[in-house]
Amino acid sequence: MRTVAAVAWEAGKPLVVEDVDLEGPRAGEVLVEVKATGLCHTDKYTLSGADPEGIFPAILGHEGAGVVLEVGAGVSSLRPGDHVIPLYTPECRECDYCLSRKTNLCQRIRVTQGRGQMPDGTSRFSCRGKPIHHYMGTSTFANHTVVPEIALAKIRADAPFDKVCYIGCGVTTGLGAVLFTAKVEPGSNVVVFGLGGIGLNVIQGARMVGADKIIGVDINPGREAMARRFGMTHFVNPKEVEGDLVGHLVELTGGGADYSFECVGNTTLMRQALECCHKGWGVSTIIGVAEAGKEIATRPFQLVTGRRWIGSAFGGARGRTDVPKIVDWYMDGKINIDELITHTMPLERINEGFELMTRGESIRGVVLY
Amino acid sequence: MRTVAAVAWEAGKPLVVEDVDLEGPRAGEVLVEVKATGLCHTDKYTLSGADPEGIFPAILGHEGAGVVLEVGAGVSSLRPGDHVIPLYTPECRECDYCLSRKTNLCQRIRVTQGRGQMPDGTSRFSCRGKPIHHYMGTSTFANHTVVPEIALAKIRADAPFDKVCYIGCGVTTGLGAVLFTAKVEPGSNVVVFGLGGIGLNVIQGARMVGADKIIGVDINPGREAMARRFGMTHFVNPKEVEGDLVGHLVELTGGGADYSFECVGNTTLMRQALECCHKGWGVSTIIGVAEAGKEIATRPFQLVTGRRWIGSAFGGARGRTDVPKIVDWYMDGKINIDELITHTMPLERINEGFELMTRGESIRGVVLY
Repeated sequence: MRTVAAVAWEAGKPLVVEDVDLEGPRAGEVLVEVKATGLCHTDKYTLSGADPEGIFPAILGHEGAGVVLEVGAGVSSLRPGDHVIPLYTPECRECDYCLSRKTNLCQRIRVTQGRGQMPDGTSRFSCRGKPIHHYMGTSTFANHTVVPEIALAKIRADAPFDKVCYIGCGVTTGLGAVLFTAKVEPGSNVVVFGLGGIGLNVIQGARMVGADKIIGVDINPGREAMARRFGMTHFVNPKEVEGDLVGHLVELTGGGADYSFECVGNTTLMRQALECCHKGWGVSTIIGVAEAGKEIATRPFQLVTGRRWIGSAFGGARGRTDVPKIVDWYMDGKINIDELITHTMPLERINEGFELMTRGESIRGVVLY
Repeated sequence: MRTVAAVAWEAGKPLVVEDVDLEGPRAGEVLVEVKATGLCHTDKYTLSGADPEGIFPAILGHEGAGVVLEVGAGVSSLRPGDHVIPLYTPECRECDYCLSRKTNLCQRIRVTQGRGQMPDGTSRFSCRGKPIHHYMGTSTFANHTVVPEIALAKIRADAPFDKVCYIGCGVTTGLGAVLFTAKVEPGSNVVVFGLGGIGLNVIQGARMVGADKIIGVDINPGREAMARRFGMTHFVNPKEVEGDLVGHLVELTGGGADYSFECVGNTTLMRQALECCHKGWGVSTIIGVAEAGKEIATRPFQLVTGRRWIGSAFGGARGRTDVPKIVDWYMDGKINIDELITHTMPLERINEGFELMTRGESIRGVVLY
């Protein structure tokens, strides 16, 4: 079939909206009509060429929602008409990782996904006869895409695509880090570094589970108002702190954070996030993606005296199991997504969406097909 | 009363066996006749002067066992004749740390303990009229010592002092890191860096809980035989590995260690111990004490992909609760201590005991009073 897609022909160049050819789903695969897709920093990072694993030409996009149009042979859990969210972290429920009960990082199709291919090692996309790579197994910057069955979460039919697409990445990454990775308990004191989209979702996750103090740290005072609406109880601007930021946060939390989260991708902040944790039990979770080659460091005494340093990918969420629950929480009003989606646009204006992101004007821009 | 003690008059000098004066126990304190005490690297480290928190003159020693002779006012959990192990990590069961259920690092008397004082801010020891500091709240290099009630584990009367004194530090530190901090499960693959006293206790802890592969890493091939008797299944000498040690360990464990332990205090090994862990769930526990100022480092990607970096002090054990259990395990033959105590000596020869340690000839030397 023919569909329309924003193609990343090469690193560092704008996306080009093209008519592309899409082969139908093979065994274990599903054809999805994408209804909406968010624009994420990870797409921008890959497009920039800074991602050492970036492959071109490709159809980017990994934060979509849509409808199943057709299923390939052997697909049993989905049928045409089902509403779905594509998963860049699949959940096969059969590999050692899924069966470990300790991680969400299903490895079933990791190798081909990393190569921009479907599990059989080929691509379904082409443009003027030239094959185009898939991206993160999702390629939601196409109006239609083919995705493995194990990489699709079936969601309720009454959830609005233009909002729940954000659950495909940002919402789950922030909320899940609180709920599934760190497992924050009621009454905890929480410190969140970075009040962008991920940080705001960490904040509403902390509120959802009944945290006490929810302290946001950001050098941009413009972030304070929205963060407070999402549940932040205290705002700390490092530029306004006299002396040591870590000491200030330890004092503000009465001994240190029970849980901290780094949502920026800055290794200096990652160290501060660890060291502001409470002696004996504070857990610091790294969510942000650091530049290639950057390292985190601390004195081992920080860990020997009980702090724990961990990380979270896709919020520790098992996509097919947990994403439908998060959609329910949104529909039940437990979490706010509407206010985070600050801009929408048609596919033709997707490059403008990335410019809004670059200028820090949007929390989340969403393409509506 | 008068007793005999090995006094550390100043940093870098040998201990001097002296007749010292010991005041009786005040409220909440207990007079203990020390029957045996191990010599630990931590005593040596402090005596050397390298410990920035070292205070002199002091009576060192923190790995003892003995008998209660007298209790001060208000002491309710102990009576004369009780057999006890002094605890450098007390367990008051009342402070925020004890009540958190998340840490063993009771803070009730931390400040005075760090100053070499009893909880009321004074010392019970003096020599020729000059006050002598306590050390780690225990000072077991004295034949008699005064210890707070909350820093004494009551143990069974049939346990031999000359063996169970080692449970006061080394045994619990290694065994507890496996059982209480990392919580290793049956069937786990475990990698242990450093096959000294702590490493051997990690190994027998891993065997006790039913680990599968128990891989010991040490540059000294002389350590292999004893480690195998304690449960090590594979020995890796980094000097004999061609290429990357981490890659070798990942291959040997079929994807990475479920749990690793650093028992040396070397920050390079700490990084290797983390990075040889399994993607998705591997937990690396730092036990060794690094030199002051040294830092650990890694790429944050190691954590974001599911490895966890933690530390352990006194094996995560709550002294009054867990130490008596470990004594039972020794008496029941679940763990081997006898073979680890390679040398015994009278107090008069304590400096020779430290020389044996320095030359790497002893696993554990024990002073018998």
